[in-house]
Amino acid sequence: MEIIVQKFGGSSVADAGKIRNVAKRVVRTHEAGHPVVVVVSAMGDTTDRLTQLAGEISANPPERELDMLLSTGEQVSIALLAMAVSELGYQAISLTGTQVGIMTDGFYSNARIKSINEARILSELDQGKIVILAGFQGVTIDNEITTLGRGASDTTAVAIAATLGADRCDIYTDVDGVYTADPCIVPNARKLNQITYDEMLEMARLGARVLHSRSVELAKKFNVHLCVRSSFSEAEGTIVVKEQEMIEEVVVSGVTSDKDQAKVSLLGVPDKPGIAARIFQELADAGINIDMIIQNASQQGATDISFTVTKKDLDTTLKTTEQLKTKIGCQSISTDHNIGKISAVGIGMKSHTGIAARMFRALADEGINIQMISTSEIKISCVIDEEQTERAVRAVHDKFELGGASS
Amino acid sequence: MEIIVQKFGGSSVADAGKIRNVAKRVVRTHEAGHPVVVVVSAMGDTTDRLTQLAGEISANPPERELDMLLSTGEQVSIALLAMAVSELGYQAISLTGTQVGIMTDGFYSNARIKSINEARILSELDQGKIVILAGFQGVTIDNEITTLGRGASDTTAVAIAATLGADRCDIYTDVDGVYTADPCIVPNARKLNQITYDEMLEMARLGARVLHSRSVELAKKFNVHLCVRSSFSEAEGTIVVKEQEMIEEVVVSGVTSDKDQAKVSLLGVPDKPGIAARIFQELADAGINIDMIIQNASQQGATDISFTVTKKDLDTTLKTTEQLKTKIGCQSISTDHNIGKISAVGIGMKSHTGIAARMFRALADEGINIQMISTSEIKISCVIDEEQTERAVRAVHDKFELGGASS
Repeated sequence: MEIIVQKFGGSSVADAGKIRNVAKRVVRTHEAGHPVVVVVSAMGDTTDRLTQLAGEISANPPERELDMLLSTGEQVSIALLAMAVSELGYQAISLTGTQVGIMTDGFYSNARIKSINEARILSELDQGKIVILAGFQGVTIDNEITTLGRGASDTTAVAIAATLGADRCDIYTDVDGVYTADPCIVPNARKLNQITYDEMLEMARLGARVLHSRSVELAKKFNVHLCVRSSFSEAEGTIVVKEQEMIEEVVVSGVTSDKDQAKVSLLGVPDKPGIAARIFQELADAGINIDMIIQNASQQGATDISFTVTKKDLDTTLKTTEQLKTKIGCQSISTDHNIGKISAVGIGMKSHTGIAARMFRALADEGINIQMISTSEIKISCVIDEEQTERAVRAVHDKFELGGASS
Repeated sequence: MEIIVQKFGGSSVADAGKIRNVAKRVVRTHEAGHPVVVVVSAMGDTTDRLTQLAGEISANPPERELDMLLSTGEQVSIALLAMAVSELGYQAISLTGTQVGIMTDGFYSNARIKSINEARILSELDQGKIVILAGFQGVTIDNEITTLGRGASDTTAVAIAATLGADRCDIYTDVDGVYTADPCIVPNARKLNQITYDEMLEMARLGARVLHSRSVELAKKFNVHLCVRSSFSEAEGTIVVKEQEMIEEVVVSGVTSDKDQAKVSLLGVPDKPGIAARIFQELADAGINIDMIIQNASQQGATDISFTVTKKDLDTTLKTTEQLKTKIGCQSISTDHNIGKISAVGIGMKSHTGIAARMFRALADEGINIQMISTSEIKISCVIDEEQTERAVRAVHDKFELGGASS
């Protein structure tokens, strides 16, 4: 029988009762004859609590020590889950990132997995044990504890599944799958049975928080059979598949929104080679992630460049661009943090025309003004006024007829 | 300059403010030119809280997983203390038992240190860093995390001091030294400036909770210069010294009491060779620690054997002895858990006569009946009625004129 990897997020192991439920589910899979490897996050809000504790001591703690601190959260969960499995009469063993040998680079707080030593895991599985691994953490060649970034337990699970050649990697969370839109915004949003890696990747990047985008990249790269499902129900969940495995061809799979963006416009920038490169290199050097970039057509040798960043990066962005202003001869800088971004994602866009027009029509019919547009092969994003975000999501969702029966 | 090891208990690092204070103290020692190695316990009641969490999952969790769980407590403290030191502008590095290489045997929850790899510690000290180590935890040759038993951070500190050949091992706690008696019971109890290893060992075993007895054994064995002092004041504390270093010869150094004992009597046991050996072997096999043992003179081929165990071991003890009863031909078993033990400890007893008589007289004058007596070269213990314990401590303390000015 092939190995199954099951990953449980923080809300799935938030207290003793929930940990016991996870144990039951894990044991059921084991009983069905599968070797089971479980990856667990820290309990509930543990990571936030630890981060806050660090904040009481230092506004800017050394990242090595922060990783030392935060990695304890997962160590608590794996120990408790191993106890819960053993309480049910089954053999379990918990392993830290160090014990497994989840080898990473030395970029504390955002380390990347370089390799995984599967020997210990396979040896424990051979002995009939359920193996329970700490997500989110790894170890460097120098035996230093690292963490992989917020939400990265998904990445641990997929990396483990890829290394072990697992049959399936099930990501258990507090929702029962990937939806065509956030059900809080669109009441008749429909759960998707299938979604392609690329669509899932766009959705994850665009604010659908069911999966960490790095985990989807990794799953795509190693062709890991990924499934998003609820730890609180028996519902089937959403399977993430390769494009050619997609049974029902859909044009648009989902609509997402993101209100955590701010817009920065550099107005009257000289329209000559190397200016944009300089701007975005300086922003990259300052550690700022840019999302959308738009450059308008040039008029009289000057152009406007607009881009979006996450709200928390706005201050640093402004400091960096103010310093650049005179150096590059930009006339003025304007910002707007009251923006929302809505996106339609779908693999079917590639081969269908008129999708963008249909989305813009939906927004126009609602009287919503579009401030920025950005497109890729499988997504269209529009920046609009923040307070119109929910209405825009509902309008686009309706326009593409994504809804199920109204609930 | 010689290395100084400083150990801070859970109450000394109970919250962010206290951790900042510990950081200041550590930095002061570093500033005085000493390479400093700090050993820290888990914050406040963390270990109890984690134990309770485990209890919600399993009444009898696997000890390996309990150690996996509990070792996170110290990992949190070392990370936070390293942050606090670095916030003061000094370089610090936290290290887990695994990272240092505090190698232990595989007896989870009560592991013994086999060796300590000083290379990493020395290399960090050489770089001018303050090294912060997790107490209470170690690692086996198979990379399994172990813990050393409750209160064993003291043992970690002494073992580190012995390995590094440290100049001093300061144990910081919430009292400012070792007292002639518990100041809660005896208001005029006096702080001792000096105490010998052997006296400290007896005091620790007999219920004075300032130091873990294993740490004192180890300090004696490796001649580690041990000092007990308060993390909340600048008071001098109590120095633990070799007998020949003791300046003022005292007869009795302190009076301790312990109400966590229960008495078991096997009545009418055949008085023949091998019976006692059999009884106490079976109890040892059941993992029960016996404290006092008394066998009365034999009458008509039968004798009574009484012994004391900690209250938590009473149930297991009774189960074990009930099974033995018919096998060894014991007539009946009686128990009493309403007992208290008081002890007088002093290196001077060796060379003074009449100490026991003086202690018994003190109890008799108070009308307190003695149920059991046990003596060693440097201590006398008496089992009495539990509710008379405090009165007995005060009487014996007075009799030996241990008190300072009444407060």
